[in-house]
Amino acid sequence: MSVKPTKIVQSLKPYVPGEQPQDGGFIKLNTNENPYPPAPEVIEAFRQAMPERLRLYPDPLCVELRTLLVERHKGSVSQIFVGNGSDEVLRLLFQAYLGAGDAVAMVNPTYSLYPVIAAQLGVRTKIFELGPDGEMPDFPALSSFKVFIIASPNPPYGTFYPEETLERLIKSAPSTLFIIDEAYVDFASGDATALVARYSNVVICRSYSKAFSLAGVRLGYAFGTEDIIENLFKLKDSYNVDYLSQTLGCAAVRAQAYYAGLAVRIREDRAFLTTELRRLGFKVYDSQGNFIFAENGDGGALYESLKKKMILVRYFDTPRLRTGVRITIGTRKELEALLKALRDK
Amino acid sequence: MSVKPTKIVQSLKPYVPGEQPQDGGFIKLNTNENPYPPAPEVIEAFRQAMPERLRLYPDPLCVELRTLLVERHKGSVSQIFVGNGSDEVLRLLFQAYLGAGDAVAMVNPTYSLYPVIAAQLGVRTKIFELGPDGEMPDFPALSSFKVFIIASPNPPYGTFYPEETLERLIKSAPSTLFIIDEAYVDFASGDATALVARYSNVVICRSYSKAFSLAGVRLGYAFGTEDIIENLFKLKDSYNVDYLSQTLGCAAVRAQAYYAGLAVRIREDRAFLTTELRRLGFKVYDSQGNFIFAENGDGGALYESLKKKMILVRYFDTPRLRTGVRITIGTRKELEALLKALRDK
Repeated sequence: MSVKPTKIVQSLKPYVPGEQPQDGGFIKLNTNENPYPPAPEVIEAFRQAMPERLRLYPDPLCVELRTLLVERHKGSVSQIFVGNGSDEVLRLLFQAYLGAGDAVAMVNPTYSLYPVIAAQLGVRTKIFELGPDGEMPDFPALSSFKVFIIASPNPPYGTFYPEETLERLIKSAPSTLFIIDEAYVDFASGDATALVARYSNVVICRSYSKAFSLAGVRLGYAFGTEDIIENLFKLKDSYNVDYLSQTLGCAAVRAQAYYAGLAVRIREDRAFLTTELRRLGFKVYDSQGNFIFAENGDGGALYESLKKKMILVRYFDTPRLRTGVRITIGTRKELEALLKALRDK
Repeated sequence: MSVKPTKIVQSLKPYVPGEQPQDGGFIKLNTNENPYPPAPEVIEAFRQAMPERLRLYPDPLCVELRTLLVERHKGSVSQIFVGNGSDEVLRLLFQAYLGAGDAVAMVNPTYSLYPVIAAQLGVRTKIFELGPDGEMPDFPALSSFKVFIIASPNPPYGTFYPEETLERLIKSAPSTLFIIDEAYVDFASGDATALVARYSNVVICRSYSKAFSLAGVRLGYAFGTEDIIENLFKLKDSYNVDYLSQTLGCAAVRAQAYYAGLAVRIREDRAFLTTELRRLGFKVYDSQGNFIFAENGDGGALYESLKKKMILVRYFDTPRLRTGVRITIGTRKELEALLKALRDK
């Protein structure tokens, strides 16, 4: 006889991770990793790090990293929370604000993790369909939802929602918490951090996995009011960010120039790939992320044919997304290999 | 106006981390860290690790590390779950098995995190007082509790509970999940892993923070039935253990001989410190951890006087523990400095 888990856990499907081939050989355009290495400053910080230090617990408050991060934003250290990847930050925000009977509102399509976290917490989800080109629909009164979560740029289309668009929503429902997931914002033409100073019902999430080339390190953070940040600290594991992650995260913040250069290159290659795929007859959404969504009617077949040619892209088998695939902006060489594979079909 | 968090979060106290001076100068005997560096194999693995690899996501399933770990225990890879520190493992176990209305039973004193996790999840806690020397009390029927958690060795006294003692409890309540937290077991005279093969209502937790000298890396794991482990996978963050932690964790498992040597040294120094403190008139509990609990009636004054001499020990301001302090087994030199400070008082 085995002990029964909670009803919530019984209702969850077994965990199936995304495709992460640990061997080489594939051109990996499926998980929105940055194709370029971390900054030389980060690699130097790694070389300088003292493994002898690993016997000690890390700083549970990530003070040095939070101090560096807040210099990028206008605010105080107590407005920054650092997590073990932005996945942890998002989970803690849901847990802090969504109790039994509360509902979280989100759009479709979006980052597939959001409904997963809601299900793990047993929280109701209300989904609003985006317009045909990823534009926001006319929402009903959002004040009936405790939390509204949106990514900007929003995967897998990559639609960027300007500050004014988000502000209109935030103003309309002052007792709803708006989580703006800016994991991809370094590849976009703007951001929404200015809203934090003006509204107490907004929190911004950022990730080190994309623009900072540090997906393997697991770092993300939230920027919001002191109230919101304190609630995350109440719920986090005691030492949630390890010593090396904090050390490398600090070095990455100091390497803005290098990363700004990478972002420019990725934006250029995104424009290149968008143009070329449209030439080949694909519908390509205007993306401001480090990925594009390309449709030709049958994403499943497209995914399979590319995989046979050792190119991995991301296929989502959902009603709205199975008409295409999401393609990460790799190096120019990788994108040319992809285009060649598509032309040779 | 700020958005209200859940009732559970409203009831939680703001987060206050343990004392972790990031500067040097103190003799740090307060957080049960290992005074010796990680194994040469771990330091070598660190030197060999490729920071360029950090741009990619880590293995979400930690397959290599789980494969190595399972060689230490008798079982299959699907019986091992690796977490971002054993704190994460414990939290996920609570979340998986404790729903609204359920209660978790534990002893007092024990690891102070257990009631904290219960409070974060809004779960009821039932506390049973240990006997005067840390021995188990006569429990009532435990089957009314969904989960029973016990550490063995159990901090801060360090009492070790033999397999037979635990087995008696486990047999008495087959629909109660027994979490045996073996964070300190490498310093003890036995362990309880054999129970996993015999009972489906037991799960063992282990930590890399103590015996493996890797508190800064954040690694812990659970060993239990496939059912239990699958439920943890359902709830974890997608990429909960970063690349370097997995890499260093693998190296540590391969360095058993080095770590066995450290454990012997720590046990010897624990015996030395216990004897010397008893000579000085302290009550010292028989400990099988890398720490001892020493009582002289006023732990607060003891803590303060040692801190003035740049020695940090752990003081718990609770009815049962304020009569003494917990002292981590540091190096022999550190322990001699401690004894000198106590004699010079």
